[in-house]
Amino acid sequence: MATHSLFLLPGDGIGTEIMVEVEKLIAWTNQEGLTDFSTDSGLAGGAAYDQHGVAITDEDVAKAKAADAVIFGAVGGPKWDNVPYEHRPEAALLRLRKELAVFANLRPAICYPALADASSLKRELVEGLDILIVRELTGGVYFGEPKEITDLANGQKRAVDTQVYETYEIDRIARVAFDLARTRSGKVHSADKKNVMKSGVLWDEVVKNVGKDYADVELHHILADNAAMQLVRTPKQFDVMVTDNLFGDILSDVAAMLTGSLGMLPSASLGAPDPVTGKRKAFYEPVHGSAPDIAGQGIANPIAMIASFAMALRYSFNMIELATKLEGAISAVLSDGLRTGDIAQDNRKTVGTEEMGAAILAKL
Amino acid sequence: MATHSLFLLPGDGIGTEIMVEVEKLIAWTNQEGLTDFSTDSGLAGGAAYDQHGVAITDEDVAKAKAADAVIFGAVGGPKWDNVPYEHRPEAALLRLRKELAVFANLRPAICYPALADASSLKRELVEGLDILIVRELTGGVYFGEPKEITDLANGQKRAVDTQVYETYEIDRIARVAFDLARTRSGKVHSADKKNVMKSGVLWDEVVKNVGKDYADVELHHILADNAAMQLVRTPKQFDVMVTDNLFGDILSDVAAMLTGSLGMLPSASLGAPDPVTGKRKAFYEPVHGSAPDIAGQGIANPIAMIASFAMALRYSFNMIELATKLEGAISAVLSDGLRTGDIAQDNRKTVGTEEMGAAILAKL
Ligand SMILES: CC(C)[C@H](C(=O)O)[C@@H](O)C(=O)O
Ligand SMILES: CC(C)[C@H](C(=O)O)[C@@H](O)C(=O)O
Repeated sequence: MATHSLFLLPGDGIGTEIMVEVEKLIAWTNQEGLTDFSTDSGLAGGAAYDQHGVAITDEDVAKAKAADAVIFGAVGGPKWDNVPYEHRPEAALLRLRKELAVFANLRPAICYPALADASSLKRELVEGLDILIVRELTGGVYFGEPKEITDLANGQKRAVDTQVYETYEIDRIARVAFDLARTRSGKVHSADKKNVMKSGVLWDEVVKNVGKDYADVELHHILADNAAMQLVRTPKQFDVMVTDNLFGDILSDVAAMLTGSLGMLPSASLGAPDPVTGKRKAFYEPVHGSAPDIAGQGIANPIAMIASFAMALRYSFNMIELATKLEGAISAVLSDGLRTGDIAQDNRKTVGTEEMGAAILAKL
Repeated sequence: MATHSLFLLPGDGIGTEIMVEVEKLIAWTNQEGLTDFSTDSGLAGGAAYDQHGVAITDEDVAKAKAADAVIFGAVGGPKWDNVPYEHRPEAALLRLRKELAVFANLRPAICYPALADASSLKRELVEGLDILIVRELTGGVYFGEPKEITDLANGQKRAVDTQVYETYEIDRIARVAFDLARTRSGKVHSADKKNVMKSGVLWDEVVKNVGKDYADVELHHILADNAAMQLVRTPKQFDVMVTDNLFGDILSDVAAMLTGSLGMLPSASLGAPDPVTGKRKAFYEPVHGSAPDIAGQGIANPIAMIASFAMALRYSFNMIELATKLEGAISAVLSDGLRTGDIAQDNRKTVGTEEMGAAILAKL
């Protein structure tokens, strides 16, 4: 078996605690001969700032680029609220996304049956929910230039961000969405604000063009504001939703919240296949943040982090069986009634990070 | 009593049907001597395009500017999906907002007790909900330049929209929010993406500065993606939320959907007070759209439109008592069990647009 390299960036807050559970899993799969992962780890976010004065060092970015997959925890916390803007914890994430060129962010929003009651929505609206948001991750208003604040002559300031998309950026993310739709229900919703934004007009034009290559996939256009609304109204009407970086940020958070269990949701960010090796750069992280309020208490939910590792097995290493087994183990543990504090329920056993990680490992 | 001028722009689809109910109300309040409104009306959206080849004529824009208040229905429909971009129905709305300079868009999301079960959220999470989204309406990515699609040398295209805010634009909308918070719970959430956008950084800086003038109002910062999530999770934590044009578009739609009754929600868009007369330009419209699928059937819910007229009474004409009475009439009719199709319930009587309008009028 070829050695596969993982670069671990636990980050801040609960990021470090939940990464430990993934490390245990890696050690176990290696030991069982199921995998042959070599791992290395680095600092990101506040942790890197405290040590090196930057959100991530050039060395760690280089290591991330060299690795077969990056497993990322979470960054940020009140401690770093006032660091210089270019060194804020999120800068690590944005730099990694951009330098790894992982333009395709897959955010599944799955409602685990055992947790349907935890949703703020009525059970029947979310039970069995399985949406996949495909978010463009390296373009749009996140990275467009100019992005600046300038002083005006009148003593006021002027802030500018630039939303920009070129045809190829929309084309490639649309193809990812259509390809994924083929493995699912064969339905794609494309969300933009073409009634107000020129980038939305181009977005829609390109997606519709790509759609011609996927005659077997149903394509629906939806305005982003309506998409947010419809996600809250009748989420199960959606399967794959493709959208830009900023709308994807918001819509995937709404979709995540519907499931009632943010602590459960993983994400994968993929680059284009290398023309020679066919390998794609890949970045896996939970959808939730660093939860500074509960950090250090050993009570964080490691499931989103573990599920992100499962996505790595699936998308970076084509270990579909092991990925499915791991996802099954998560489900099984939940069905057994184990819960971390964030998803605590009456008549269920509330456990800590370590116990949850161990229970999942035991199921394997 | 001074004559007050109203300019009515019913627009397209159900817009024309629900405006009729407002006209009846105006006729009645005039007749009762409660008001002295003079009215005129014009065309907007597809209706204007069909007649004049533009989304709104210069004459109608001039009339809107001259009026004490504009009452707007809704625009758009599949019939005009392929008209030239600058003449699409929404262009009427955008032009009016910009030329009237109605920068402060107030979008209340109120859950009527009689309708709490219609929400997709659990009753206890939305019962009694009363959120006011204060959306900046004349700036940001809606109007920033450049806003264009250009052809690149490689045969591809490049689309650009520009998110831009100056200090004064943020300052004035923040003041509107803080002033309104004083009349409510004394709490403001300001939503932006300062972790990614420079406009968010300036937004937060200016709002915090304005906050110093309102020491009695609690100010909370929230990231826009988290705001969307929290609206779905525990909406009642919010009272006034101030945000920019694009985030306001999405967040107000999410908030609206929580109430379970989009057909009930009005909005007001206000300009700055005239330095001489103190009057502010004002624009009132329902939050819902033109609903082409049910247009022409006499079944549209006129309540959002009527409630928008109530907002006009309150904000443009300081007729607080009459506004409150009208809002009370809406509530009473709902408590009586009258419903239009969009909010139909078992054991309640489903009525059409006209019957609903008449019932509200009868309560007065
Ligand atoms: C932390 C932040 C920069 C990030 C984003 O806005 O993309 C986060 O919200 C996310 O969705 O991954
Ligand atoms: C119709 C459209 C241009 C408009 C907007 O995006 O502002 C609408 O969604 C709204 O919220 O009033």
